[in-house]
Amino acid sequence: MPILHRDMTLCISLSGRPSNIGTRFHNHLYDELGLPFVYKAFSTDDLEGAIRGVRALGIRGASISMPFKTDVMAFVDEVEESAAAIDAVNTIVNTDGHLVASNTDYEAVQLLVERHGLDTSAPVLLRGSGGMAKAVVAALRGSGYEDVTVVARNAEAGPALAQRYGYRWVPDVPETPVGGALLVNVTPLGMDGPQADELAYPHRHLAASSGVLDVVAFPSETPLVRAAREAGLPVVTGAEVIALQAARQFERYTGVLPTDEQVARASAFSRE
Amino acid sequence: MPILHRDMTLCISLSGRPSNIGTRFHNHLYDELGLPFVYKAFSTDDLEGAIRGVRALGIRGASISMPFKTDVMAFVDEVEESAAAIDAVNTIVNTDGHLVASNTDYEAVQLLVERHGLDTSAPVLLRGSGGMAKAVVAALRGSGYEDVTVVARNAEAGPALAQRYGYRWVPDVPETPVGGALLVNVTPLGMDGPQADELAYPHRHLAASSGVLDVVAFPSETPLVRAAREAGLPVVTGAEVIALQAARQFERYTGVLPTDEQVARASAFSRE
Repeated sequence: MPILHRDMTLCISLSGRPSNIGTRFHNHLYDELGLPFVYKAFSTDDLEGAIRGVRALGIRGASISMPFKTDVMAFVDEVEESAAAIDAVNTIVNTDGHLVASNTDYEAVQLLVERHGLDTSAPVLLRGSGGMAKAVVAALRGSGYEDVTVVARNAEAGPALAQRYGYRWVPDVPETPVGGALLVNVTPLGMDGPQADELAYPHRHLAASSGVLDVVAFPSETPLVRAAREAGLPVVTGAEVIALQAARQFERYTGVLPTDEQVARASAFSRE
Repeated sequence: MPILHRDMTLCISLSGRPSNIGTRFHNHLYDELGLPFVYKAFSTDDLEGAIRGVRALGIRGASISMPFKTDVMAFVDEVEESAAAIDAVNTIVNTDGHLVASNTDYEAVQLLVERHGLDTSAPVLLRGSGGMAKAVVAALRGSGYEDVTVVARNAEAGPALAQRYGYRWVPDVPETPVGGALLVNVTPLGMDGPQADELAYPHRHLAASSGVLDVVAFPSETPLVRAAREAGLPVVTGAEVIALQAARQFERYTGVLPTDEQVARASAFSRE
């Protein structure tokens, strides 16, 4: 039997290549919580038109993914600090035609650092300099990390990102492990595809480290995460990041904060 | 369990005051036919933005209701004869960003006249001069009716509508019944609300008539329809018109023509 009703509220995602995760995650939670919402992924070749459609159709929320995270700022009414700090939006909330942009990736990383009890006085190695790397670096700064090394081949984006937060940049993973470091991966290393088997940090770095944060979510059990688990290290996975940022989006869209258990069930369902 | 998938195709309706009928009708048929579509009603205060959103988000179809049926023509790429003839669109189909507008009310009235075997040489009395009246008058002309009297208080719209199709206009229902006439109601007489109990034509007209077509759909068992049934006359109801026009929309959106039985089931479901 159809579940849709005219009075249900629509939320959407906008991305270049939609995955099915958000659609399954949000709809599963709507169903479990009995909320009159419905969620569906979209792509577009007219971002401004899509956002105008969000406003004109009263679409309540839009989750924004690549390649729209920065460009979309031009079309909203208000950009919150979480998004402005990193020039990247992943969440738009539409309240009676007033569109507010924010970034729940940033919020999720901060919350996970706290929840996993990671030591914010530890040194950090962070690989990556793209949009998600910006969010993670900004969140680490917000969490209080002071000794962060951005590792990035990109000789423009890498130093720019490091400098923005008073951190250091190096082009390659240092030969010598950094004792007690939190190892952060914000590259496609370990992601499904040509780099699926690659370990983001050498084993000697893992042996010396105090924990791992890997934002790769497909799969979330990357070579780095598996090696860290085998070494008994605290691990924050991309699955956790994506689930928590989605839970924060969910709360912004619906006004209802799902429990951790509900998020875990929806997250598992979304990844089946 | 949620039924939505990222790859499902969205169709919508746009109207000033959405009913739940279309949403239930289309989703019921999608479900019965196993089609990967989803349908939801919307309103808007920015019609141009909504249509731009249809294009930008790849929304496959949009059913258009009052007060947007005429204004929407400015925002599409092509207007078919069924809509152009009556300056009223009720269906937009989006094929890779190319938007074609048509009017399935017009098509449905013609088909129902044929299916019910109504005598197209009979005289017609038709009450109403609004948007739906235009569609019905144009359809009657297309079906071959030559002796039609438009009955409308509105001394501008009434004569204009009649004249456009070479018909006659009178402001009030004639005192004397027209022998063998098809009695058509395209006014709110008999509709839920302040005029729910009003009979669109006096009993003496019914006694002399050859059939009734009442486009009121809520409820479709209007005083006129009930009186016509009691008199043993052929009757076309607003429920039939709305179901058939929706079936035609359904076919245009999905490429699949539902059977009459499927339409009847979806229609019954949509009105529960």
